[in-house]
Amino acid sequence: MTVAMSGDCDSDDLTLLDAWWRAANYLAVGQIYLRDNPLLREPLAPEHVKPRLLGHWGTTPGQTFLWAHLNRVARRGEFDPLFVSGPGHGGPAVVAAAYLEGTYTERYSHVTADADGLRTLFRQFSYPGGIPSHVAPETPGSIHEGGELGYSLAHAYGAVFDNPDLLVACVVGDGEAETGPLATAWHANKFCHPVHDGTVLPVLHLNGYKIANPTVLARIPDDELLALFTGYGYRPYVVEAGLDSDHAAVHRRMADTMDEIVDEIAALRREAAEAAEDGAAGRAVPRPRWPMLILRTPKGWTGPREVDGQQVEGTYRAHQVPLAGTRDNAEHRAQLEEWMRSYRPEELFDDGGKLRPDLAALHPGGDRRMSATPHANGGELLRALRLPDFRDHAVAVDRPGGPVAEATRVLGGWVREVVRQNPDNFRLFGPDEIASNRLQDVFAVTDRQFDGEIVDGDDHLAPAGRAVEMLSEHMCQGWLEGYLLTGRHGLFTCYEAFIHIVDSMLNQHAKWLKVTRDIPWRRPIGSLNYLLTSHVWRQDHNGFSHQDPGFIDHVVNKKAELVRVYLPPDANTLLSTADHCLRTRDYVNVIVAGKQPAPQWLGMEEAVAHCTRGLGVWEWASNDDSAEPDVVLACAGDVPTLETLAAVDLLRRHLPDLRVRVVNVVDLMRLEDPTEHPHGLPDREFDALFTPDKPIIFAYHGYPWLIHRLTYRRTGHPNLHVRGYKEEGTTTTPFDMVMLNDLDRFHLVMDVIDRVPGLGVRHAGLRQRMADERLACREYTRRHGEDRPDVRDWVWTDSGEPDGRAGRPGAAADTASDFPDDVRTGPDQHDPMADVR
Amino acid sequence: MTVAMSGDCDSDDLTLLDAWWRAANYLAVGQIYLRDNPLLREPLAPEHVKPRLLGHWGTTPGQTFLWAHLNRVARRGEFDPLFVSGPGHGGPAVVAAAYLEGTYTERYSHVTADADGLRTLFRQFSYPGGIPSHVAPETPGSIHEGGELGYSLAHAYGAVFDNPDLLVACVVGDGEAETGPLATAWHANKFCHPVHDGTVLPVLHLNGYKIANPTVLARIPDDELLALFTGYGYRPYVVEAGLDSDHAAVHRRMADTMDEIVDEIAALRREAAEAAEDGAAGRAVPRPRWPMLILRTPKGWTGPREVDGQQVEGTYRAHQVPLAGTRDNAEHRAQLEEWMRSYRPEELFDDGGKLRPDLAALHPGGDRRMSATPHANGGELLRALRLPDFRDHAVAVDRPGGPVAEATRVLGGWVREVVRQNPDNFRLFGPDEIASNRLQDVFAVTDRQFDGEIVDGDDHLAPAGRAVEMLSEHMCQGWLEGYLLTGRHGLFTCYEAFIHIVDSMLNQHAKWLKVTRDIPWRRPIGSLNYLLTSHVWRQDHNGFSHQDPGFIDHVVNKKAELVRVYLPPDANTLLSTADHCLRTRDYVNVIVAGKQPAPQWLGMEEAVAHCTRGLGVWEWASNDDSAEPDVVLACAGDVPTLETLAAVDLLRRHLPDLRVRVVNVVDLMRLEDPTEHPHGLPDREFDALFTPDKPIIFAYHGYPWLIHRLTYRRTGHPNLHVRGYKEEGTTTTPFDMVMLNDLDRFHLVMDVIDRVPGLGVRHAGLRQRMADERLACREYTRRHGEDRPDVRDWVWTDSGEPDGRAGRPGAAADTASDFPDDVRTGPDQHDPMADVR
Repeated sequence: MTVAMSGDCDSDDLTLLDAWWRAANYLAVGQIYLRDNPLLREPLAPEHVKPRLLGHWGTTPGQTFLWAHLNRVARRGEFDPLFVSGPGHGGPAVVAAAYLEGTYTERYSHVTADADGLRTLFRQFSYPGGIPSHVAPETPGSIHEGGELGYSLAHAYGAVFDNPDLLVACVVGDGEAETGPLATAWHANKFCHPVHDGTVLPVLHLNGYKIANPTVLARIPDDELLALFTGYGYRPYVVEAGLDSDHAAVHRRMADTMDEIVDEIAALRREAAEAAEDGAAGRAVPRPRWPMLILRTPKGWTGPREVDGQQVEGTYRAHQVPLAGTRDNAEHRAQLEEWMRSYRPEELFDDGGKLRPDLAALHPGGDRRMSATPHANGGELLRALRLPDFRDHAVAVDRPGGPVAEATRVLGGWVREVVRQNPDNFRLFGPDEIASNRLQDVFAVTDRQFDGEIVDGDDHLAPAGRAVEMLSEHMCQGWLEGYLLTGRHGLFTCYEAFIHIVDSMLNQHAKWLKVTRDIPWRRPIGSLNYLLTSHVWRQDHNGFSHQDPGFIDHVVNKKAELVRVYLPPDANTLLSTADHCLRTRDYVNVIVAGKQPAPQWLGMEEAVAHCTRGLGVWEWASNDDSAEPDVVLACAGDVPTLETLAAVDLLRRHLPDLRVRVVNVVDLMRLEDPTEHPHGLPDREFDALFTPDKPIIFAYHGYPWLIHRLTYRRTGHPNLHVRGYKEEGTTTTPFDMVMLNDLDRFHLVMDVIDRVPGLGVRHAGLRQRMADERLACREYTRRHGEDRPDVRDWVWTDSGEPDGRAGRPGAAADTASDFPDDVRTGPDQHDPMADVR
Repeated sequence: MTVAMSGDCDSDDLTLLDAWWRAANYLAVGQIYLRDNPLLREPLAPEHVKPRLLGHWGTTPGQTFLWAHLNRVARRGEFDPLFVSGPGHGGPAVVAAAYLEGTYTERYSHVTADADGLRTLFRQFSYPGGIPSHVAPETPGSIHEGGELGYSLAHAYGAVFDNPDLLVACVVGDGEAETGPLATAWHANKFCHPVHDGTVLPVLHLNGYKIANPTVLARIPDDELLALFTGYGYRPYVVEAGLDSDHAAVHRRMADTMDEIVDEIAALRREAAEAAEDGAAGRAVPRPRWPMLILRTPKGWTGPREVDGQQVEGTYRAHQVPLAGTRDNAEHRAQLEEWMRSYRPEELFDDGGKLRPDLAALHPGGDRRMSATPHANGGELLRALRLPDFRDHAVAVDRPGGPVAEATRVLGGWVREVVRQNPDNFRLFGPDEIASNRLQDVFAVTDRQFDGEIVDGDDHLAPAGRAVEMLSEHMCQGWLEGYLLTGRHGLFTCYEAFIHIVDSMLNQHAKWLKVTRDIPWRRPIGSLNYLLTSHVWRQDHNGFSHQDPGFIDHVVNKKAELVRVYLPPDANTLLSTADHCLRTRDYVNVIVAGKQPAPQWLGMEEAVAHCTRGLGVWEWASNDDSAEPDVVLACAGDVPTLETLAAVDLLRRHLPDLRVRVVNVVDLMRLEDPTEHPHGLPDREFDALFTPDKPIIFAYHGYPWLIHRLTYRRTGHPNLHVRGYKEEGTTTTPFDMVMLNDLDRFHLVMDVIDRVPGLGVRHAGLRQRMADERLACREYTRRHGEDRPDVRDWVWTDSGEPDGRAGRPGAAADTASDFPDDVRTGPDQHDPMADVR
């Protein structure tokens, strides 16, 4: 048989292609309905039908149709196609294709290429102990879970980054097309380089209906539909099939159209490559108007036209299982048999149940099969990053709290080197926040990739670059997922509060990772790394709407073996943490770190040791001499660490005999029980650090309940008192913000007085002074619009010597009574605008 | 002065309008920079400038420009406009407008209409104790928080539902336009009735830049831009202003364009109304092609052209505060003064600092001012729902566990009556899941509103209806928020797993509600009600990707006074709960309830009593005779309740002397400490119910840690053992699903044996039998594809009499050994596909 080439597609080829399509549809229906008699060698009996019928037929025949025609494209040879099934609830389509291509049997040897294997294939589908009804990690050839809709195009565009030979055919269901994330993902064509990146061919599959409703895009006039995709920057092609269309004619139209599309893609890429070679500096390559295909077919095409007197094919009733109760309903059973026989299985499979060889020759071979492409099992292609030594970027810390640095800016220097050394398999994604989050050093070695118009004055914007920024957290997450799933590495940096936008995407990716762990042929992929900054405690610029640390809680609900949460307290610990995360596989790593100037606590070697332990006593801040402390002050997060150390400073001045131990936590999961999380600290060690019976005052970055949840089984939990964010915020000053949430140094001292037995009565005066300080600080901010300088500029000056703290240059006022008098304002000096809120 | 009418806009009018615009811009700049000298009556000195400069200038002048022209529209009189500021970080614009219209002083009497008031207005902005820098609940005239971007259009379209006289001008920033939710929200024009609903006028404000990047829509060719909005179904109008455009000319173009737009809207509405009057049955009213406006202006228009040698106006550098460090930088201070004086404040305000009367006459009066419209303070317009008696829909429960019903289908009957009795202020939103979630009874009295093409065979689809379905959770949430914020009521029904899609929207709405509680003039609005069904335990059709009960955890992180979570165990409790929720104000109510056939436990009066208590002992299921039990079996959620009662049944058979107490929880927040949540049960009552010292086995619907978090302060917490969802799922049978997560009846019995002192050793045999039952059940599902009938069909048959359970018709097999023999399969009978996963 000759390969059908562009403009050379004869009817025999299409007859074979139609047979392959019938085979795929036959297998899809078989998966939904049958548990036996897979080749219909005997009349269909009740015991051949599954007792519970689950699955989605409606989208399936359109997808098998497309797969069949994409195999024609694959065999042309210009492109390695990858198939992304947006309507992935049509799992039977992709499973059928993988089986017909032989990949399924290669991956699952018990699903043999014969009648027994067919029986197994059918029976396992959506069956207890079998495979999901949706496209899933178990499905060969897929990088896209068929669960929550909306992310297929983002995955597709993520997959083609730095894969110039890859063509991703991305089926977008017209239901999925209504979701927000999908509606903006069409614009990803403005972030895709026509030479360095591959090509996405979006296929809008208009089958007209969702579960019970028509779809929006199926019910607008054709001129609007075409205008919409022209407006999105594509050249739309249309192929339509009606209920009564002649299949041969539809195949012909589709084949011709696909040839035209692929020729056009090839030409556009060639032109772009030539332009790039000829190009001078600046914008050498104009943005191509890539083709996209609108494929209009009946929902449930080739299925039962009518069931029980109601139209099914071409309506929403075809969405799931068109014939219900088929095992016990003889009429439905007869209809099922007629339906399946309409595909003429006897022409498709040989006596043993094996696909006829001329049909098996319709797909390309080996890794070029869409079901076997290594791009869909990215771990096979994964190359470890070349990671420069993060120690080269260390902040020199002569003494704890001495230097001031912006943690993420320091990290940016190292990320710049990561970018430099990994020019084709590491990318940085952000919703217009890479610079705002202080990683702008990366722009010394790369640009923001943008394929829209670029004008003078644009800041590091270029047609190609390692940074990708669009104001859509969904796109950033989807791109990165697609990039990781095809075997590369990346980092998503985002404002902490807005990362909740992708909560449900994280869910789906984490579920994917969980399942792949039990699939031997799925190779580990790069971890999903988040750098969350512009965090809850420093939203003085934006206020309450930007304050939410709950993403950590959300992540911690996922399977423990997948998730890691890090709260490095300064730049060196951030460097060490980030280096670790970029080395890991198959995890979700969340790093929360500030971008504002802040004191630096640990030298690099201490930082590495601290991060390796995940948590530990800061002896230089403790005065329990490794003996039993009176109180443990624990902290996690940069701002809580600062306030804790400032509280320790106050305690040393005012309660010098109190034995204080400071424990800092970088790796939050160390707190959890070791039976619950692999990082969990053994109880013995936990007790040793936190004591089984002393008060623990824990200053935490996020919602305080999480610390309780992680530690509720610990011996000392009844003594644990957590301060954290409790949904009190506003546009305010940094210190006012911690005061609003009772996480400030003064309140921590009050907590110590309240919790350490005996202190309360003896130090009621001190407690009151602390409370007064808080009031005075609040007054000051209201009068002056900024924090009281002694609080704002407080530095840790203790040398570790018992009396080394006094008299150092830059030390804060030594006693509370030294605070400036002018802040002691009375009520009559209240600022009137204090009444506004 | 005469009012400028369509086609009658003379230059004098526009000169005044320009003066108003200058006044608004002046006030906006003043808010960002000044703490004193508000009218620049003296040269600008350092002490007049705020020490910390916060706020967003870039978007502001475009919004004031639009507001000025919308006031012209408002004064025409056809429409009551409401202004929605998508780029709401430009808070100074809306605050300035509200002040100029007098509303600000009416709402905040200390912000007077004079120089003192101006000083206060300036000083309070983004100042400790002052107001947020973003548009916020504090801002008169707003229903839209200027925080997370993407929801302005959904809010706008939600606001116009059932508000035929309302015109919402919705500014969409070109940054916001990149978000997914916004990109799909343009399609909301297909769900808006041209007669019964009002009109949205979307204004795409193309100022070209975000924080550091250009925007996508500003960098595509004009033909694509126009095609895009034509494709979205609008008629796009364009007004452009360049850096050097003559302001008078731009005002002229804008005024003419706005007149044209408003004329067109009026004509379209008139035509639609006439068509509706003339209309026969079916689709009488064609979908109008509503106008939308593309307003292209420089970012930071009228601000400093250059700062420190770099272009600012017209670039991303104008995004926030164009002149930094102005207090201490004399050059910047001079530039600020020049900038502010360029607005010629002496022409705008009188000697006392009051707006000149001819400018004050430019806006309409009273409630028709955009800053004063009651639509933006929906509680003012709120009418309580007429709620039919839910008792009329009760399921008759002759004995606990007797009848079987689908809880949400029963609820649907009552919701149908709610819809019927509230034809203009209650709507139901869902992502194509209203019928799937079994609320289809509502379609007996209403339709799904859809303004695309409607064809024969569509299911209850009509141009007007109380149900709104689009496959976008973002749209459902945004529409409902807009509907609630303008004073109406609604219900959002969604698959439980996918409600995470709107996590961050819930955050923003909850923050809004929290803040409004402290704003006296903000009136309470209808609660945000979620009905989550198709829940985690019954995803046999879809599998792992659809399993996630974590939305509850997310909600519980919000302020306690706002959030309520209900897990009614059956239909009657669901009815009672839903009735309660629809009566509440200012809450977020989450109801989780199943849609599958399930046993019914409580008669209606018991259900009401149980829901009123929120939790309680089910005496009929307990055998502790109100004395001290040996163990407490607690449950929350329908499936956990079923498994708990089945476990009790097993315990009665096998351990008849064990004293068991069953506690069912409907209102989850009853578990929390009363100091943390207003619903929290006092410790004394909690101890009485759960005992201070007996084992508590808690079967919970969601992630088990939440129960620990809610109860960690309770006396009995050390004895609490929670079973819940732990991220183990697949496409499987209902009983296999609970087994996967150790929440099944057999495992609960094992838990009892493990936890009740003394049982473990004595009943090791029983424990092993329970473990064997689980294995046998799993084997059965794998062989037969469905649950073992005795487990699936188990019914609670206990009459309350000690020996009343045996021999009843329909009772399950009496002892474990009676289970059918054929399920005792050995390893060699394993189904081969068990190896697939």
